[in-house]
Amino acid sequence: MTVRTGRHFLQIPGPTNVPDQVLRAMSAPTCDHRGPEFAALTTRLLDVIKPVFGTSGPVVIYPSSGTGAWEAALVNTLDPGDRVLCFETGHFSTLWEEMARSLGLRTEIVPGDWRHGADPEELARRLAADTDHSVKAVCVVHNETSTGVTSRIADIRRAIDEAGHPALLLVDTISSLGSIDYRHDEWGVDVTVSCSQKGLMLPPGLGFNAVSAKALAAREQAGLPRSYWDWGPILEANRRGMYPYTPATNLLYGLVEAVEMLNAEGLPEVYARHARHAEATRAAVRGWGLEVLCADEREHSGSLTAVLLPEGHDADKVRRIVLERFDMSLGAGLGKLAGKVFRIGHLGHFNDLTLAGTLAGVQMGLHLAGVPADPAGLPAALEVLSTP
Amino acid sequence: MTVRTGRHFLQIPGPTNVPDQVLRAMSAPTCDHRGPEFAALTTRLLDVIKPVFGTSGPVVIYPSSGTGAWEAALVNTLDPGDRVLCFETGHFSTLWEEMARSLGLRTEIVPGDWRHGADPEELARRLAADTDHSVKAVCVVHNETSTGVTSRIADIRRAIDEAGHPALLLVDTISSLGSIDYRHDEWGVDVTVSCSQKGLMLPPGLGFNAVSAKALAAREQAGLPRSYWDWGPILEANRRGMYPYTPATNLLYGLVEAVEMLNAEGLPEVYARHARHAEATRAAVRGWGLEVLCADEREHSGSLTAVLLPEGHDADKVRRIVLERFDMSLGAGLGKLAGKVFRIGHLGHFNDLTLAGTLAGVQMGLHLAGVPADPAGLPAALEVLSTP
Amino acid sequence: MTVRTGRHFLQIPGPTNVPDQVLRAMSAPTCDHRGPEFAALTTRLLDVIKPVFGTSGPVVIYPSSGTGAWEAALVNTLDPGDRVLCFETGHFSTLWEEMARSLGLRTEIVPGDWRHGADPEELARRLAADTDHSVKAVCVVHNETSTGVTSRIADIRRAIDEAGHPALLLVDTISSLGSIDYRHDEWGVDVTVSCSQKGLMLPPGLGFNAVSAKALAAREQAGLPRSYWDWGPILEANRRGMYPYTPATNLLYGLVEAVEMLNAEGLPEVYARHARHAEATRAAVRGWGLEVLCADEREHSGSLTAVLLPEGHDADKVRRIVLERFDMSLGAGLGKLAGKVFRIGHLGHFNDLTLAGTLAGVQMGLHLAGVPADPAGLPAALEVLSTP
Amino acid sequence: MTVRTGRHFLQIPGPTNVPDQVLRAMSAPTCDHRGPEFAALTTRLLDVIKPVFGTSGPVVIYPSSGTGAWEAALVNTLDPGDRVLCFETGHFSTLWEEMARSLGLRTEIVPGDWRHGADPEELARRLAADTDHSVKAVCVVHNETSTGVTSRIADIRRAIDEAGHPALLLVDTISSLGSIDYRHDEWGVDVTVSCSQKGLMLPPGLGFNAVSAKALAAREQAGLPRSYWDWGPILEANRRGMYPYTPATNLLYGLVEAVEMLNAEGLPEVYARHARHAEATRAAVRGWGLEVLCADEREHSGSLTAVLLPEGHDADKVRRIVLERFDMSLGAGLGKLAGKVFRIGHLGHFNDLTLAGTLAGVQMGLHLAGVPADPAGLPAALEVLSTP
Repeated sequence: MTVRTGRHFLQIPGPTNVPDQVLRAMSAPTCDHRGPEFAALTTRLLDVIKPVFGTSGPVVIYPSSGTGAWEAALVNTLDPGDRVLCFETGHFSTLWEEMARSLGLRTEIVPGDWRHGADPEELARRLAADTDHSVKAVCVVHNETSTGVTSRIADIRRAIDEAGHPALLLVDTISSLGSIDYRHDEWGVDVTVSCSQKGLMLPPGLGFNAVSAKALAAREQAGLPRSYWDWGPILEANRRGMYPYTPATNLLYGLVEAVEMLNAEGLPEVYARHARHAEATRAAVRGWGLEVLCADEREHSGSLTAVLLPEGHDADKVRRIVLERFDMSLGAGLGKLAGKVFRIGHLGHFNDLTLAGTLAGVQMGLHLAGVPADPAGLPAALEVLSTP
Repeated sequence: MTVRTGRHFLQIPGPTNVPDQVLRAMSAPTCDHRGPEFAALTTRLLDVIKPVFGTSGPVVIYPSSGTGAWEAALVNTLDPGDRVLCFETGHFSTLWEEMARSLGLRTEIVPGDWRHGADPEELARRLAADTDHSVKAVCVVHNETSTGVTSRIADIRRAIDEAGHPALLLVDTISSLGSIDYRHDEWGVDVTVSCSQKGLMLPPGLGFNAVSAKALAAREQAGLPRSYWDWGPILEANRRGMYPYTPATNLLYGLVEAVEMLNAEGLPEVYARHARHAEATRAAVRGWGLEVLCADEREHSGSLTAVLLPEGHDADKVRRIVLERFDMSLGAGLGKLAGKVFRIGHLGHFNDLTLAGTLAGVQMGLHLAGVPADPAGLPAALEVLSTP
Repeated sequence: MTVRTGRHFLQIPGPTNVPDQVLRAMSAPTCDHRGPEFAALTTRLLDVIKPVFGTSGPVVIYPSSGTGAWEAALVNTLDPGDRVLCFETGHFSTLWEEMARSLGLRTEIVPGDWRHGADPEELARRLAADTDHSVKAVCVVHNETSTGVTSRIADIRRAIDEAGHPALLLVDTISSLGSIDYRHDEWGVDVTVSCSQKGLMLPPGLGFNAVSAKALAAREQAGLPRSYWDWGPILEANRRGMYPYTPATNLLYGLVEAVEMLNAEGLPEVYARHARHAEATRAAVRGWGLEVLCADEREHSGSLTAVLLPEGHDADKVRRIVLERFDMSLGAGLGKLAGKVFRIGHLGHFNDLTLAGTLAGVQMGLHLAGVPADPAGLPAALEVLSTP
Repeated sequence: MTVRTGRHFLQIPGPTNVPDQVLRAMSAPTCDHRGPEFAALTTRLLDVIKPVFGTSGPVVIYPSSGTGAWEAALVNTLDPGDRVLCFETGHFSTLWEEMARSLGLRTEIVPGDWRHGADPEELARRLAADTDHSVKAVCVVHNETSTGVTSRIADIRRAIDEAGHPALLLVDTISSLGSIDYRHDEWGVDVTVSCSQKGLMLPPGLGFNAVSAKALAAREQAGLPRSYWDWGPILEANRRGMYPYTPATNLLYGLVEAVEMLNAEGLPEVYARHARHAEATRAAVRGWGLEVLCADEREHSGSLTAVLLPEGHDADKVRRIVLERFDMSLGAGLGKLAGKVFRIGHLGHFNDLTLAGTLAGVQMGLHLAGVPADPAGLPAALEVLSTP
């Protein structure tokens, strides 16, 4: 077996590379989660995290994966049998829709080709047709981690507003939060779902719900059984800096550090950095003569890029070679994209030279896998990165 | 404000003091949870953790608190409206019962005085009366964290067996696992619920379900809505060392290390160590002339001791003085025991001299709080600790 | 072999227990020691460390042990064959004197009984007799780590001044700096020697020289060969935040953190804390009916206590039992005190309950080793610790 | 100020990027350096480190920089006034020669152009002329960190042997040990000098001397004053796993881990990896149309490459731009090479994609600094890296 040397290149679209200082913050001794020091930390955390979601309302933090935060969004706001409109934008939107069905909701799927985001015009049409307001919620994935396509949430909001429809807007920001411009309040999102291991630069283990007043009101009526995910006792305890059950203390230590890093850089700067790395990555893909999966210029993801291989080439072979030869993890094609695309994560704690190394590894991997790829890819990316 | 020096004494009954090597293991870089290395780690972990539960069956690990694992045990095995028999042994048994009701189950409470464990004879009576087997599950807390009373699960099992009753046996081992002798298979437990931050010596953030074949079969019929907690996809993915959603990778790194520490010490040795520290603690309590809350000699907890104060004394005052003056966290009285007891945690990564320091701090705190306490307490504990 | 659980009690008089936050600070990535960030860190460090020495002059930091800092003090200030007056206060004063001889100096030893500090009156006598000022330096160990006796440096200074003698005053503060009141400038010390692993709460690996203007002037003439230890190039490079050779970057990261901890607590508070723990320890020793080695009430050490065993008892047996049975390291008797004393370190990152645990361990160890010791020792210490 | 994101690229030729697991190993609690556990660790360390030096003899480890290990080599083997032959191969060879003079030795310099290694033929000539064997030692830097030129030590040895000259051979391996093939015993080196922060992948703070039997014999006669550096007491204490003064315990924890990593990879594999990365780097330099400083094909360094800029271009400007724009540290030109070269470190814990990122950063930096550089540089390096 080859012994690895140097740092692994973790270029999947999450979990992302956790900064040293966040890992160190997580190493502080576990504390009494009912004591005054932890209460002070929680109180501060619940305040400083709000801008990351673009909200002045409450953010509920769970010991859970992002999947758990999906479930929380549904069980806190809906009744058994409620109708939910789900946009099929890729693998993860599909999983969320399946979850909704498992929980006893009736879902209506807006089909998609996995190369475009949620279509505001189609939404307008559907809501206009829903004259009795049977649709209780619209579920959209902001940034589809399986495709690298970012849905335009502001336009989705506008479509709902123009239809005068009361449906709740539930948005998954799992791979966009802290990487791509996002505005819970301004865009009128009711529940924003997220997790720790992507733009927040933490290990996995925390799920998030940012919650609007309308969502809180919906909770009063919502009849789906719930206990662990119930916002009520959490928000109640949060007022005293507490949680109704033992929170994931050490991940929360890391979260404070990570949020402070984002705020120190400045959220607009964070978004601009991701957009620039995404642009450089697309320049490389086009330079190689390959196709970016995302088909709409307005919807390119700032956090990852899915690369479509020519017919007859196996994306998993490229990934395997890149892993074995260059110690870099790339994201696999998921669901119906399996073997057809690989995904390059360029989000989180990341910089120009790590991107250059990443793209060099992809270029060499394509070459070694026998995929025709013009060596002009990497120079095209460097051109973007070295623009003064 | 006083600046603290030296190590905080975290002597609540969990979270417990996390060993340095576990914190360091958790600091390893986050990895690709779909890659071959993590699959190998998961596969190994799911194997080495079984003896800790005393099982040869599967152990499901959630990114969650222990509360989440309670919910998982219920939603995987029961139908809405099912009848569940719950022993009221203290605060946490009450919370679990409340959760069951929130999820749509009908609960029957066996009342208790919070000084005794679940009564096998009462269980026998109730099951004998339940001739149509309407009780679908019996919920027992193995070690009540709020009282320091350990229920005799083997006797509970015997009562069910002798009644010839098919109810499932669900057991909370949150503050006993890895500290007090426990045998999932031998005792015929159907779901063992646990979490990471007590005897497993990790920070909070992981929930566990050890699952019997009977519980797995029950899941096939169980109608409570479930998705996140569903054992099915997890066990399916676990076969390949995977999880259906992103697991809490870095806590799992720590878990491997912690389980290896337990196995290196030897589980019987781990249990004996806890029993000895509990005995020394009780010797101190009695030496002080105070009362141990647990009223049955057969049910003293190995992991914590609740100390009952004389009428007219405020346990929270003692705790506050001990925290401010000696930088030690003690557990509060919970629910109806608030102010009446404090709890000394003596579980997890712990040793004789830390216990001596703990008991010295309690003794001084009692003195400073004006609680009459004979100074013979600490020497009585040292007597136990220095017995050759 | 017994597997250890819980934290080791490292109660030797150094290395001391390193705080978690210092270990974490040391874990930051190693940097370019010639880059602007490290220069800024060095510049700040060399400033904030001055109050710890009680000086406004320069502090030279070496990658070395404290022994290296002894050598540095000598080779920077003296000529081959120079006469040096050395007080024999214990094992370490003896080693320093031997070093001086190895380096080609002529030493004059003021003999001592290892139970008293350097005698100012004897110094006055000797300097008065040295009419031709052949003595070039006086070497004193401030706090003898082998005996727990603290020499009165202010009185030593006065003796030199009153004799009108030009000898340099070189003082070893290896086990006193950051624990016992010390004033380089006010006491007119010319070179203060110290190291990282005691009151500074770091791992070993750094040596220190605080240097007076008179010492700097002496360096200009001093003829002992030197290169590594030469203050000149270091002070020169320090002006730009640099070092003439690669400094121990990660230990310096930790040093910044440790010094900030001392300053946050306040140096007077740090000294008072150590004095109080020393007093509690002596109360225990006397309570046991044993003798503190230090024979002069004015000279008790704040950082360690050496305990003399009754004739016929082996201090190393006590230490071995305490290590094996209670996982605590105590200091051995050194040199002519071997087997006759053990030493309890109570310095650095330390608090009341850790001291209580420490003294409980010693008391049990004495008992198990068959040393007659009254159990009144520990309660006497708790009396001191719980005084309101 | 720009906030940095992602990992800094520390591509100076040392300190190098310290692996996470080494930093974690260094974070273990500081221990009793006189206790049995540390003795066991030392004993094992002093054994496993021997192959790294290619020796079966003793290796002395100091708490010091590499500079300290230079001093140790001289003061342990030589008399005041002894004649020492020093090859001027670059900045560091010059500093070593200056140190020798500071310590009272007479040095004879073999001048060099800083583009070639030590010349075995010139050595042969000089030793032949030294018929009375007045030269007591020959000092050679194996890999000149300031130039990227590796002297051929085996040929140097041959020249000494063929001259039948008894001079000691002292070799500095500061930037070659653990990176470039080195054989203390086979090449008949008498003292090998090294340090921790380069190929050994540790932070700075440890110096090394590997010592031949002949060197040990020389020590018996050597008259330079010494105490801290004296091999005698260290080797004596090492026999019991001890040190005569407090060793840098936590760096030694890291050293054990680092040496195990080297041994796991295999030393021949480690050397081949470095050689391949050096080859790829030179391919880039030539591709850019620039000149590698090293002028002899037989002497290219495996651990760093110095790049000569065309007349009229400022290497420090390139470095500054690369640091500010791409967060990468490159080595400066030292001494007479200041501003004329920059140095790329490619040693230690390092891999293909980090090298690719490094070279991409240099290429972009050259471009931004206005240095004419053909973009064919990076592709030429990738060609080397992707050769199957």
